Parts: sequence; structure tokens; C-alpha cells
Amino acid sequence: MKFIVFEGLDGSGKTTLIQKLSNHLDQCHISHICTREPGGTELADEIRHLVLRTNAETPCARAELLLYEAARAQHVEHKIKPTLLKKQWVLCDRFSASSIAFQSAGRKISEHQVHWLNEFATDQLHPDLNILLDLTVEESERRRAQRGEEIDRIEKETQDFHQRIRTSFREQAQKNPSQWLQLDACLSPDLLFSQTLEHLKALQWLK
Amino acid sequence: MKFIVFEGLDGSGKTTLIQKLSNHLDQCHISHICTREPGGTELADEIRHLVLRTNAETPCARAELLLYEAARAQHVEHKIKPTLLKKQWVLCDRFSASSIAFQSAGRKISEHQVHWLNEFATDQLHPDLNILLDLTVEESERRRAQRGEEIDRIEKETQDFHQRIRTSFREQAQKNPSQWLQLDACLSPDLLFSQTLEHLKALQWLK
Repeated sequence: MKFIVFEGLDGSGKTTLIQKLSNHLDQCHISHICTREPGGTELADEIRHLVLRTNAETPCARAELLLYEAARAQHVEHKIKPTLLKKQWVLCDRFSASSIAFQSAGRKISEHQVHWLNEFATDQLHPDLNILLDLTVEESERRRAQRGEEIDRIEKETQDFHQRIRTSFREQAQKNPSQWLQLDACLSPDLLFSQTLEHLKALQWLK
Repeated sequence: MKFIVFEGLDGSGKTTLIQKLSNHLDQCHISHICTREPGGTELADEIRHLVLRTNAETPCARAELLLYEAARAQHVEHKIKPTLLKKQWVLCDRFSASSIAFQSAGRKISEHQVHWLNEFATDQLHPDLNILLDLTVEESERRRAQRGEEIDRIEKETQDFHQRIRTSFREQAQKNPSQWLQLDACLSPDLLFSQTLEHLKALQWLK
């Protein structure tokens, strides 16, 4: 079984790529789940609501990070670990690297502290692979506007904030090339999927 | 201004002692607030509900601790620090020592980890004084039963769990006598109040 995480700015195509890979795993008869952060369990979804809503008391930076980590701890314990123990794959939209990007680079909490909290919340569970869908902030905003969905509290942040997020994701990917696959999110969904597939075959995770 | 925390098992008389001290501070024209954990702000109260309710998904031990710490971070940032900055006193029902007792001694998360999280959530804000209302587990249960209130998820824990909490509070008080006042919660409310007052006068915080 493999634990694969998809990271990137909003609108970078994570959902589409997860769906395409999930369909392929189905065709290969590989049992798996698709999940997302924050969320993945009923309680974690309730925490997601507290963090992302725009019409209530804003959590301070430390409370925001601790809420994300609480949702993560519950998600790992009640969903990700049990799934991996059943030898099934886990495809997850966002995980620990998002906290490094959003709460350390974005909110300027020290990377050491965010890393400590990631390790605590996940009980030191790390993805087998992070796939970064790298996108410019401008293109992310353009795609978000096109979707016309309601904008959450994090999406409302400044362009400078989102620029720091993008830079952090790229740096994380470049620092640990064995654990990251960086893709150009401007490519077509089919091309992104075929590059992903090629990589998983090169790793001998798929035939 | 002073930041005084009241710790002890449920039914140990924290609320009554806080009320008596608050009345006394009013008589002395000392501006102050009374608050409690988890809670103290709207968001922290919502987190309190997620942690203590009995009719929904149970948080795992790490998620429980992270939720308490998220509520604490928000409480410190939005209520306790601003109050202290206005030179007002803060009387708080439970704080960091409760996490050492409940989540380390109770849930068996390492004390080092709980301590790290306390320091992070509070931004290293420590009470000027902790007052421990020390009570046996049996007497705590007797008083709780007498009150006939609905029992929350933590109160539902075993007697052994609550015994570990009591022992932890006593150990914390004995390790740091300069930061703790330990009182025998079996004494009358008036006597507990007069012992508290005597201590605050000895510290020259009150005349």
C-alpha cells in the first residue's frame, strides 16, 4: 500500500488528478480511499468548518495551526492509519506539507514549531510521496474566480501570502526530491495524469 | 496585575473560591476578569463543545490535547493577554497544569510533549500563581453526583483516570512550591477563601 499526498495552491487541479488516479487504481483492482485535509472524519470536518468559515471569530495564528493539527491527528488515527493497515492505498488532498506552507511560510510561525506539531499530530506518519501541482498565484486566482465558488478565510488572504505558500511548496519539493514529484499545473489534466503514472511506474508501485 | 489559576478535580470548589475572591477584589477596587478553560472566547467555547460532548465522534488522545491547546491559544491571545495588558487581574478556572494532569497523567501522552504544547499555545505565558483545591476522587464523585448535572466525556472516565489526575496536580504543586498554593478542598468555602487571602497578603499582592 502507498500513501500519496497532493499539494498545491487552490485551482491547481488536485481534485481532478486524484480522480484520474483513483479511476486508474480501480482498473488495476488496487483498493484505496480518497480523502482530504482538513477533514476526513466527522469531527475533523467540524474542525475544518471552525477554521475556514468567514462569518465568526477569527482564530489567531497559533490556534489556527493547532486546529489543523487536531483535525490531522484525528484523520490519521481514525482513517489513514486503519486504511494503510488494511493494505489499501490512501490518496490525500493536502497533508503536513500544507501546514509548513500555510502556517510557517504564510503565517510566519517558525518552521521548527510547525514541523514538531506535524510529527506529533501524525504520530510520525509520513507520505510515501507528495505530488506538487505547481501553479503561479495569478493563475490560481484566475481559476478560482472562474469556478465562482464561495471563498473561504484562507483563500481571502493577500497575494503576497499566497506567493509565500507557492515558494514554500517549491522549496519543500526541491529539498526532498526522493519524496516529491513536482509537476507544472499549467499542463492539461491528461498530461498531468500521464506524468504521474509514469513516475509511479518508475517507482515500481504500478505496472 | 496578577494572573491566578484555580486547579483541581470537579467539585473541588473552584467556582465558589473564584467568586469569593472576585467579590473581594471588587471591594478593593481591583479591576479583574473571571474566565475558564476550555473557553473564554466564542471560538474557544465552540472547541470546548467539540471536546466535551458525549454524543459524537470521540477525539483520539492527540486530537483532544490539540483541541484544548487550540482553545488555550485563542483564550490567551484574545482575552488573557489583552486583560493583563490593561493592568487588570485574571482569575482563571483551569489552565496549562490541567493539560499536564488530564492529557499527560490521564491520557499518558508524554509530559515533555504536553509541556511543549503548553508553551506553544500560551506563547510562554505562565500564571503568577496556581491554587490547587486538593480533593479525593471519592469526594469529587460524591459532590458531582449531588449536583446532579449532566456528566461530560472527561467526567465519565474511570476512577483510576481521575486518581492519576489528582496525583499529578499534587506532584506539580509540590515540585514548584513558589508557584503553587495547595489547599485542602474539604475545608469550608469560608476557610478556603481566608487561606487564599492570607497567601495573597503574604505575597504582598493584597493589603
